[in-house]
Amino acid sequence: MSRARLRDLGIAVGALPPGPLNAITDVAGVRVGHATVVHDEPFVARTGVTAIWPAGPDIWSDAVFAGFHSFNGNGEMTGTIWIAEQGLLAMPVCITNTHSVGVVRDAVVDYAVRHRAAQPWHLPVVAETFDGWLSEAERFPVTAAHVFAALGGAAPGPVAEGCVGGGTGMVCHEFKGGIGTASRLAETAGARYTVGALVQANYGARELLRVDGVPVGRAIGRDVVPSHRDLPDLGSSIIVILATDAPLLPIQCQRLARRATTGLAWAGGIGANGSGDIFLAFSTANRVKLSATMTDVRMLAADQMTPLFQAAAEATEEAILNALCAAETTTGRQGRVAHALPLDKLTDAMRRHGRL
Amino acid sequence: MSRARLRDLGIAVGALPPGPLNAITDVAGVRVGHATVVHDEPFVARTGVTAIWPAGPDIWSDAVFAGFHSFNGNGEMTGTIWIAEQGLLAMPVCITNTHSVGVVRDAVVDYAVRHRAAQPWHLPVVAETFDGWLSEAERFPVTAAHVFAALGGAAPGPVAEGCVGGGTGMVCHEFKGGIGTASRLAETAGARYTVGALVQANYGARELLRVDGVPVGRAIGRDVVPSHRDLPDLGSSIIVILATDAPLLPIQCQRLARRATTGLAWAGGIGANGSGDIFLAFSTANRVKLSATMTDVRMLAADQMTPLFQAAAEATEEAILNALCAAETTTGRQGRVAHALPLDKLTDAMRRHGRL
Amino acid sequence: MSRARLRDLGIAVGALPPGPLNAITDVAGVRVGHATVVHDEPFVARTGVTAIWPAGPDIWSDAVFAGFHSFNGNGEMTGTIWIAEQGLLAMPVCITNTHSVGVVRDAVVDYAVRHRAAQPWHLPVVAETFDGWLSEAERFPVTAAHVFAALGGAAPGPVAEGCVGGGTGMVCHEFKGGIGTASRLAETAGARYTVGALVQANYGARELLRVDGVPVGRAIGRDVVPSHRDLPDLGSSIIVILATDAPLLPIQCQRLARRATTGLAWAGGIGANGSGDIFLAFSTANRVKLSATMTDVRMLAADQMTPLFQAAAEATEEAILNALCAAETTTGRQGRVAHALPLDKLTDAMRRHGRL
Amino acid sequence: MSRARLRDLGIAVGALPPGPLNAITDVAGVRVGHATVVHDEPFVARTGVTAIWPAGPDIWSDAVFAGFHSFNGNGEMTGTIWIAEQGLLAMPVCITNTHSVGVVRDAVVDYAVRHRAAQPWHLPVVAETFDGWLSEAERFPVTAAHVFAALGGAAPGPVAEGCVGGGTGMVCHEFKGGIGTASRLAETAGARYTVGALVQANYGARELLRVDGVPVGRAIGRDVVPSHRDLPDLGSSIIVILATDAPLLPIQCQRLARRATTGLAWAGGIGANGSGDIFLAFSTANRVKLSATMTDVRMLAADQMTPLFQAAAEATEEAILNALCAAETTTGRQGRVAHALPLDKLTDAMRRHGRL
Repeated sequence: MSRARLRDLGIAVGALPPGPLNAITDVAGVRVGHATVVHDEPFVARTGVTAIWPAGPDIWSDAVFAGFHSFNGNGEMTGTIWIAEQGLLAMPVCITNTHSVGVVRDAVVDYAVRHRAAQPWHLPVVAETFDGWLSEAERFPVTAAHVFAALGGAAPGPVAEGCVGGGTGMVCHEFKGGIGTASRLAETAGARYTVGALVQANYGARELLRVDGVPVGRAIGRDVVPSHRDLPDLGSSIIVILATDAPLLPIQCQRLARRATTGLAWAGGIGANGSGDIFLAFSTANRVKLSATMTDVRMLAADQMTPLFQAAAEATEEAILNALCAAETTTGRQGRVAHALPLDKLTDAMRRHGRL
Repeated sequence: MSRARLRDLGIAVGALPPGPLNAITDVAGVRVGHATVVHDEPFVARTGVTAIWPAGPDIWSDAVFAGFHSFNGNGEMTGTIWIAEQGLLAMPVCITNTHSVGVVRDAVVDYAVRHRAAQPWHLPVVAETFDGWLSEAERFPVTAAHVFAALGGAAPGPVAEGCVGGGTGMVCHEFKGGIGTASRLAETAGARYTVGALVQANYGARELLRVDGVPVGRAIGRDVVPSHRDLPDLGSSIIVILATDAPLLPIQCQRLARRATTGLAWAGGIGANGSGDIFLAFSTANRVKLSATMTDVRMLAADQMTPLFQAAAEATEEAILNALCAAETTTGRQGRVAHALPLDKLTDAMRRHGRL
Repeated sequence: MSRARLRDLGIAVGALPPGPLNAITDVAGVRVGHATVVHDEPFVARTGVTAIWPAGPDIWSDAVFAGFHSFNGNGEMTGTIWIAEQGLLAMPVCITNTHSVGVVRDAVVDYAVRHRAAQPWHLPVVAETFDGWLSEAERFPVTAAHVFAALGGAAPGPVAEGCVGGGTGMVCHEFKGGIGTASRLAETAGARYTVGALVQANYGARELLRVDGVPVGRAIGRDVVPSHRDLPDLGSSIIVILATDAPLLPIQCQRLARRATTGLAWAGGIGANGSGDIFLAFSTANRVKLSATMTDVRMLAADQMTPLFQAAAEATEEAILNALCAAETTTGRQGRVAHALPLDKLTDAMRRHGRL
Repeated sequence: MSRARLRDLGIAVGALPPGPLNAITDVAGVRVGHATVVHDEPFVARTGVTAIWPAGPDIWSDAVFAGFHSFNGNGEMTGTIWIAEQGLLAMPVCITNTHSVGVVRDAVVDYAVRHRAAQPWHLPVVAETFDGWLSEAERFPVTAAHVFAALGGAAPGPVAEGCVGGGTGMVCHEFKGGIGTASRLAETAGARYTVGALVQANYGARELLRVDGVPVGRAIGRDVVPSHRDLPDLGSSIIVILATDAPLLPIQCQRLARRATTGLAWAGGIGANGSGDIFLAFSTANRVKLSATMTDVRMLAADQMTPLFQAAAEATEEAILNALCAAETTTGRQGRVAHALPLDKLTDAMRRHGRL
């Protein structure tokens, strides 16, 4: 069956409207690029790198505000000690597989050096989930060239989802997982702001999967669609990147990041012990020139933030579901198969619960 | 209509079985007491204090491990700086209304002094949600005598829910809220552990209320049951206390506390800006004598914790719903009315979505 | 011997110049008030309340940015969960003894209610150190009237130090401790900013006391000046309040607060286990109207902050030493005596080490 | 002039006695290895890797407890999100230069894979300070082979200090910096425990350097010994690794880590904005088998920890000073020279202040 986005199936989760692309790139200036690494020789690779630019190439000199939250820290997101300290993000963010965090990190440094970034040193933000069930991660398939390709190929507009970039080899709720994205428009403080989410989804138990509250995971048993859990489990995680054009200070970005927890819960994620559920939020509204000694910034009032919180939760939820709807059945190492979420069974389940 | 607990209505949320009482008191040794303060003269009071003893009176000398999490910190839980530092809880926990945190805190000190607690000084744990919509909170209706009554009257066994103790004047999802409790049994590491939750629920938008994924809040509109939001909103919050007999270290209690976020999300809580969503978890399995210089303790393996996480999420979710099911329509200051969740309409909605 | 400030003795610590008053009130708008409670009947009280207004009475509606740090959290500072969440401070800060945190907290609420503060509910910031060695803390000597007196009597200008307000019954490095203050001027970003510190000092071992690196504590042995440690020790702590007019965001205030650790270390504080070493920093440069939906704020560049860090460390160090220099020998409960730091022996020690 | 350790010069800082080696390896089981990378062709490298094994090769399966603290997070220590979550350390820790964190991290994964570590995936702990002033860091001189050499060559016993391993190209207080180590013995709970520190010191202003409180940095002016600050400054940082055999839980390791701040302050570090001052502490007393579902552990009482805090502060202070005493004048890229701290001038200064 051909794949689709959740809303193409007539399923709308949440109350707020999505942006035009229903993607993180609805936040003006945000660009996404993927490098997908798939080969069977000399070893099996189902992996890659996804790069998110918070803004154009001036991000190296004109930072945005950012904050992060670790809901369950069985994972890695480098650069977060710096973000916790200063609340600034001055580079693209990359997501890859667990064992390639290092090469991706150093490649971002290399890229920065060669593109004459203002700072002499860099603390890249690189996050991961583990694809070693499908991909021979221990062979280190990702190279700096892949990173440069993801960075260089990043673009505004629609974002490829499913088995692409860092999401290529991921598994989610015991279906094939990967990259997903969504966005929401929130009215507050007399204006309309966008919150976009991009996830690399690799977590979760089948029976906990919910779509708009409907227990879809329980409706599609392991007898119907086999689970990778029939073989040894090799970890699980979800990375969520939230972008907004609402003028948030660093401490407010931290608050926004925390709301990915809510969207994750709605989809059925409970932060299982082995999961690295780590969330980053940035706001493009204020740009901080690293060369300036003083910056004038705008700050949305705290009590105007609730619609953004709801938007973040909804966008995260839908981004996860989009990842599941887009990802295709994938065969990997040792002939292991991660099965796609069957969209017909999804719509059947929704219909039976009166949602279609 | 007479009130009931959620399961009495035939509605079961979550996958894990509850304990015998389906209450925080299923964790052996935990005791709960309420002091309910309701009067119309000389001013209108709909308030009170709820006390949770993690263990018997030896708690003053034999601490338990604890950890907390602030999902949205627009509220107060005193004593948490100490808990963050040492991971020890050596006293009962009290929950009350926002403006009475001080008197309750000092009353706990007073109680400790008079009961010859080992330490010369104390840092009580007192949390709050705001009941000023129904109750003249600014008249400070709670006194030390109420605290002593709640502490002294605490007992094991079934826990009164709804408009009692600290929950007397609370509003939740635009219905009458208050105190609720639930528990779960989790199998892990070859044993069965209990996780119990007690909530003081005073948060949330009507349209976000979900019961087992069913959008009950949208099904019972403000035209059907009026909302307090037709009058000025005066804040909102939820305090969650989690107890377990699983042997968790302080850092593991912090992890457990964080999972209240998941249960809250399932019920429809998004951590709105004005909400003080603060969670405390303690483990009764290890007792730390404050007079000892060294203590042998047991620690559940990290990778055995996932069932406890699910238990914490489910118990929190059901405790919130129990609060809503138990709380009765309440008239307060200026004739304001907080309407109870109509149980018949709840079961109707569940039935329409194929859950009953 | 008559008491003096450290600089009156010819001893200058640190490299940066102090402000005109060498006090927290060098930060324009900051006001300090003390209520000192000293009586022998019906029980012995050596205690009180110190109030710090970050700005004028408009603080209730026009917040300042703030952040806190707990170096060793064996103490209490209420309101910090809210400050961690929103980074706003919209009320005066009070410091008192451990057992009176509650009454002071509720009194601040009461004051807010009666002065028609904009918000219907409040989360006061009240910190403490324990004076139970000299004062019968367990008799709860502080009342709401004392809080109102400290709040109402607050003023700009010189700040009384030593045995006043919340510092009345405190002991520091085994000498009489209490309230101290100091300030520094820091040049950065083409301007001159002030950082002021106010401490309530009640911590520390004699042998660790240093003045400008000179081991003064070791130079004035317990045979020369008796220590309260000859009797049971009853805890110890230090609260540091930092104010600045540099335009710092909340995350930057957290950074500044963390530097009180450095100043404390220079004076000889190591965050002993029983110590509640909790620090709050606020910036008066940006005012955030709680009624506004959007606010324009200024932000000092991160890389311009180092002079402020040094200023915070130096001001903290000197504020502690000023507390020691100002506090007078005090006799309290059971005839216990906390001896003042002998200023002649201090100057002797400094002279012997070539610093005078 | 030949180099020496601080105590060889007759200078003893702190009050507690050092262990037999006065090194982190005084904690039984801890091993340290260095790979030093120095070459002028094809580009100038003054860099390397230092590896610290918390225990023998069973560390991969039998974790130790750990905790970290970021005093000023302008740096990187990977793996800390996991340590914050679970409090476990199950691999060696590496320290290198900023731009090589990635290659070192992935090499640790590679090493783990090849040595059949129990876990299928890994989250290595790799920290850094920046040596780009002396070394062409942007040419990425460190390779996986260097990491394997440092890991494989690690040994108990004396630890090489100064211009070795990760410290090869570092600068500290405007003198040549690098690796330093020290230890302290602390009596508590009826036993004697060891606390060891290893630092990679690359921070600080000349004028702030203190040795036992003596303003040595001011005594050795830039006219006497030139400073690298005469050329553009390229950042600064200090990594501190603390080891102890005292039985500490993860939350207690966090507390210990925080005390590196105190030792750093005593040496003259204020956490300047550009500094990545990040501290890790681990306890070897409890071993947690990752394959076990339950573990019995011992916990030192909270109120027995103060001697360990003092030990951590003193060991950190002396480790920094040992780095300065050991490091030799180094010429690097573009003929830049980082001058060693002149030991004769150090002892002169101490003597003038009556400390020798």
